[in-house]
Amino acid sequence: MNPIIFFGVFLHFVIFCHASGADIALDAKATLLHRIDSLNLLIYTCLLTLTVLTIWVFKHRRVSWLHETGLAVIYGLIVGAIIRYAGSTNQITHIDVHPAPDTKYNLSVPPDVLRFHFPDKLQVSSSGDIPVPNKTYAYSFRGEIVNIEQNEIDLKATFDPEIFFNIILPPIIFHAGYCLKRKYFFRNLGAILTFAMVGTALSALVIGSLMYGCVQLMPASLAASFTFLDTLYFGALISPTDPLTVLAIFSQLKVDVNLYAMIFGESVLNDAVALVLSGAIQNYEKRYSNDGGFEITAFLGAIGDFIGIFSLSLLVGAFMGCLTALISFLIARDKIFTHVREWPLLESALFVLMSYAAFLIAEVCELTGVVAVLFCGICQAHYTYNNLSSDSRNRTKQLFELLNFLAENFIFTYIGVSMFTFPKHHFDPWFIIAGFITSTLGRAVNIYPLSFLLNLGRKPPIPMNFQHMLFFSGLRGAMSFALAIRNTVSEARQAMLTTTSLIVIATVVLQGGAASHALAYLRIPTGQSQNDENEALPYRDVRSLYQATDSGGPPSDIGFGLRNMDSTQPSSCDRATTGSMVVKWGNGAKGVIMPWQLNSYDEGRGSGDGSGGEKARLAKLWGAVDSRLLKPLLTHARPPLTETLPAFMRPVARVLTTTHQYTQGDNTLRRTDSDSDLCIDEPQPVPTSIDPQLSINVRNGYGHV
Amino acid sequence: MNPIIFFGVFLHFVIFCHASGADIALDAKATLLHRIDSLNLLIYTCLLTLTVLTIWVFKHRRVSWLHETGLAVIYGLIVGAIIRYAGSTNQITHIDVHPAPDTKYNLSVPPDVLRFHFPDKLQVSSSGDIPVPNKTYAYSFRGEIVNIEQNEIDLKATFDPEIFFNIILPPIIFHAGYCLKRKYFFRNLGAILTFAMVGTALSALVIGSLMYGCVQLMPASLAASFTFLDTLYFGALISPTDPLTVLAIFSQLKVDVNLYAMIFGESVLNDAVALVLSGAIQNYEKRYSNDGGFEITAFLGAIGDFIGIFSLSLLVGAFMGCLTALISFLIARDKIFTHVREWPLLESALFVLMSYAAFLIAEVCELTGVVAVLFCGICQAHYTYNNLSSDSRNRTKQLFELLNFLAENFIFTYIGVSMFTFPKHHFDPWFIIAGFITSTLGRAVNIYPLSFLLNLGRKPPIPMNFQHMLFFSGLRGAMSFALAIRNTVSEARQAMLTTTSLIVIATVVLQGGAASHALAYLRIPTGQSQNDENEALPYRDVRSLYQATDSGGPPSDIGFGLRNMDSTQPSSCDRATTGSMVVKWGNGAKGVIMPWQLNSYDEGRGSGDGSGGEKARLAKLWGAVDSRLLKPLLTHARPPLTETLPAFMRPVARVLTTTHQYTQGDNTLRRTDSDSDLCIDEPQPVPTSIDPQLSINVRNGYGHV
Repeated sequence: MNPIIFFGVFLHFVIFCHASGADIALDAKATLLHRIDSLNLLIYTCLLTLTVLTIWVFKHRRVSWLHETGLAVIYGLIVGAIIRYAGSTNQITHIDVHPAPDTKYNLSVPPDVLRFHFPDKLQVSSSGDIPVPNKTYAYSFRGEIVNIEQNEIDLKATFDPEIFFNIILPPIIFHAGYCLKRKYFFRNLGAILTFAMVGTALSALVIGSLMYGCVQLMPASLAASFTFLDTLYFGALISPTDPLTVLAIFSQLKVDVNLYAMIFGESVLNDAVALVLSGAIQNYEKRYSNDGGFEITAFLGAIGDFIGIFSLSLLVGAFMGCLTALISFLIARDKIFTHVREWPLLESALFVLMSYAAFLIAEVCELTGVVAVLFCGICQAHYTYNNLSSDSRNRTKQLFELLNFLAENFIFTYIGVSMFTFPKHHFDPWFIIAGFITSTLGRAVNIYPLSFLLNLGRKPPIPMNFQHMLFFSGLRGAMSFALAIRNTVSEARQAMLTTTSLIVIATVVLQGGAASHALAYLRIPTGQSQNDENEALPYRDVRSLYQATDSGGPPSDIGFGLRNMDSTQPSSCDRATTGSMVVKWGNGAKGVIMPWQLNSYDEGRGSGDGSGGEKARLAKLWGAVDSRLLKPLLTHARPPLTETLPAFMRPVARVLTTTHQYTQGDNTLRRTDSDSDLCIDEPQPVPTSIDPQLSINVRNGYGHV
Repeated sequence: MNPIIFFGVFLHFVIFCHASGADIALDAKATLLHRIDSLNLLIYTCLLTLTVLTIWVFKHRRVSWLHETGLAVIYGLIVGAIIRYAGSTNQITHIDVHPAPDTKYNLSVPPDVLRFHFPDKLQVSSSGDIPVPNKTYAYSFRGEIVNIEQNEIDLKATFDPEIFFNIILPPIIFHAGYCLKRKYFFRNLGAILTFAMVGTALSALVIGSLMYGCVQLMPASLAASFTFLDTLYFGALISPTDPLTVLAIFSQLKVDVNLYAMIFGESVLNDAVALVLSGAIQNYEKRYSNDGGFEITAFLGAIGDFIGIFSLSLLVGAFMGCLTALISFLIARDKIFTHVREWPLLESALFVLMSYAAFLIAEVCELTGVVAVLFCGICQAHYTYNNLSSDSRNRTKQLFELLNFLAENFIFTYIGVSMFTFPKHHFDPWFIIAGFITSTLGRAVNIYPLSFLLNLGRKPPIPMNFQHMLFFSGLRGAMSFALAIRNTVSEARQAMLTTTSLIVIATVVLQGGAASHALAYLRIPTGQSQNDENEALPYRDVRSLYQATDSGGPPSDIGFGLRNMDSTQPSSCDRATTGSMVVKWGNGAKGVIMPWQLNSYDEGRGSGDGSGGEKARLAKLWGAVDSRLLKPLLTHARPPLTETLPAFMRPVARVLTTTHQYTQGDNTLRRTDSDSDLCIDEPQPVPTSIDPQLSINVRNGYGHV
């Protein structure tokens, strides 16, 4: 920020040279801070504008060797270098103070405000035209200074690192959650959870241990400053992946949706895992350093922290998502409110406010707001989205798409600029080299052994070229950088920040640029065609490998509904083509077809060769609860609760079911929402009183299959 | 904020009671501040959610006696009272400090950071379980403390007042500018500018003088604390109007568009005028208080400030708006770029970034960012909007609509809450009563004399009931409050804040609630129908009084284009029906029909009775420059520059004209943008080489009239 301060002062003098020197001296402090902030923001705004314009040209010319994030980083680096080497280094001024002699103070924490009379007893050198003020100023609490010898303190940070966690990350993560609304995510849920939860923890542990080993081999000065917890923290922050670049190329080249879902899903969840994990490590560090001896207690405490904070944050987010769904459902429920659905502005405002409230509630409760926002986004997409008017759907999608775009490009620009302007970098070549090697190894440890284990129980298995691609997609991004820049008090932490920045820049620019070649080299099929993923979300243009063997069938979502309606008729012609799989599962059904049966049925049909679909075991229970309880409760999806709940719950169910749900059978068939559900679409037990028109539709539907 | 701090501390202890006391003492300060901010935001988020839900119910039940802003204020008042009387009053702690004995310091401005070792020499009482830390803390510069005796300082403000000027007002003002894109604004430009510029200054002067008189009659303690500049500042901040409530009712009841345009246009511009005016008064105060004698110089300086800052801010905003238009135009211009128009996300991002850059550039140059953003919004609507893809148009409109909605409701909620929680209120009943009376008088002085003067040269004149309605629409809102809360250092300023808050609350709730009755009482016609203002912007549903006499004609925008094309044929059947007016104006034309002729022609035709339209004299020159130079340069509007520029400029014009513009004649007729232009739609001199198909269309168009 210091070169910018210089520029700001310069501007100030140029523009207000007509004002007297006294004015400048008096106002300088108060107005300068604001103008420096504005100038700062202006620089980033211009950089983003430049990036947008260049992306435009690149998109047109189909430049695939550099993605927008890579572009943002490179522009950031250039401008950062200019700021660094063009400006002078205007230092932040500071003095040490003591309390006034007769001060009374009764608390054991530092005061919020210091009142300082300037110039007081200071020997101030004043040039003739700028009189020295003689006033009292307020100074507010900023934080602890750990390293007093260090001349530059936290205030010189170009931005407060906390803005990443409170302003930049929430829209990015929410958008990711809101886009997760795809059946392929749930179809690959087992693999995604394994990679994200187990894999990230494993990767953090491996990187942390290896780095600790490496650090011990380095010169003593550095080795002494690193504890095992420091390197473990490094492992946690460098483990989450951010494969935006790769996914953009996947979209362009229409790569297999299952691979896409695995990479996208893993990267979304491992951000959340890494964030909570690093928090737990810090808490552990705090307790460990205080008590010295109680390692086991502290370790258990850290694990408890991790599990508790993660699951509570998840609950807060999911609760707020469901609450929004319930409100939007209730609004649409009663006849008296139905006209008001025409006010999409109110609906969108409610949506945004409730999502933001999820973040704030989690933060207030000392949980992790970003994790809450992620699960809130998933719930909003899964339930609320179905209750919104089409105008509100567009509006919310476009709003978060835009916010996500701006936030993402801002953070990558900032990574570039801060390489030069952030004052707390510590370049240690050995640590950087070790960081690159171990982070690569950590990614390998995450993917290959876990894929092997997954393949033992998974059908179809994850092929080797998919595994290589998963490994290759381990770019590091926003979350790693935000975690690294959050804490730069010690030399060890500063070396971590530098290494993390370099790893992010290198992976985004180089790996991102090579992604399309990697796809070709690994012979991963591209250009697949598919007909049920056509919304303007990241999955747009992504095609399914499995469905590529499908020919001429109806769009699978509609097909789902039709087949579900008829699923108790085992003699269907369609059923016959899917082989023994379905019959086997069908035997398990007791009058009502269970969601996982439909799922495996669809898988079997989709893969065509009868080798069997993925069973998505983890999703089974969830699917049942979701489709039989939550969906009917929170959205207008059929079947109504009166049909899904056990008999003794019927009176309760009747209260909670809308007349709309009883009578909307036709609508279910005409749904245009192409991805409202899990792979396990809501099960449709045969209605007790079936609408004649409806059953005709069903039969007609079958005729087409 | 203090009750919230208490609540925050409480939560902290409840949730983290398992952590040791030492942890709490060490972390409390750093994490507490963040969590208090979150809690604060959460309260407002919940309040906004509640407001949204209530609006929903109100809209459905057609409740017209309370508008959403009134609702937000009332909810704010209730919650403010609860926070005030339920929480304890946890004080911000402060101590006085002196520099350390051996400190060297070379600058004449206070240092940026104080380093304070705690507990240092303080006598700290520590309860047993919370050890006293022994660390050094950083304190950063906040600002001057004017009144040292005062126990509570600025830090207790619930929010930093500057957020209003940097976060809340910009989207509101930009949205207002972006919505100004209506021909009726320019048709009433003279009246609007008179009310906004002259009227606001007059009102500020009258209120300032009267208040000064009133203050002199009050008890000596208060009288002494007010200078004439203080009351003048009060006049400036209470003059701008914010008739959101009234306009919402106008929209609902379909009130005359000219009245709507006058009220809306005036309120948008007088916000900008008042902001710059109050800044100029403050600058004057500063110089006056320093030099004592040079009143004339300072007064001239203040006037210079006002004119300079206003016009420079205007230029910055307009320049950025036009630059955006030029970029979007160039992108659409060359064939190689045309495909890329399909990326509305990039287009929208560019739009947002450039508009934000206008704000930042003005702030960096010590101009007024809010004013820049207003004129940027007007230019974006007038030029850029026409170059955007329809997806981007929707997206930008919806985005700013949502931001405006949230920002507006936030500020009114905040006004309510801060009545109770803001620590710097000063209730002085005499000042409050005087404030109510003088602000009403100020509004009257603004409207009635100026309307009288305007009516001398205006046709049709502003009828008395319209004048009464203009007077009645003088609600005070966001800008007044923001200006009042910006500076609360003295008792005088605090009394102003209290009075302003009360005036805002009273006018928004009471006057806003009575607006529909006022309309009925004043016999202002409602329920007018009109067919050229149907976009989802504030003008939606507003109908023209003039056009109500129209029957069966084509939509006037299309009519415009058609008539313009044919305006050199004086024998048109349509022309005959409009009487001598047109013939008179037509005589003035020398081969090319001028925009103001078309305007008056339309007015004459619209008003039917031949009493003559408003001449919009102020808009004449501007209209000519706009339609002949700027529109063809910045958008795809016809005619191309080659036809509008003088002969010697032709070579330049040819370079700047796109082939698209030469060949798009047909598109002009098919335009769906219902309000892309001034009342003076781009003049269409008869093309030298007229498209045969086009002229057929023109004739067909006439056949319908």
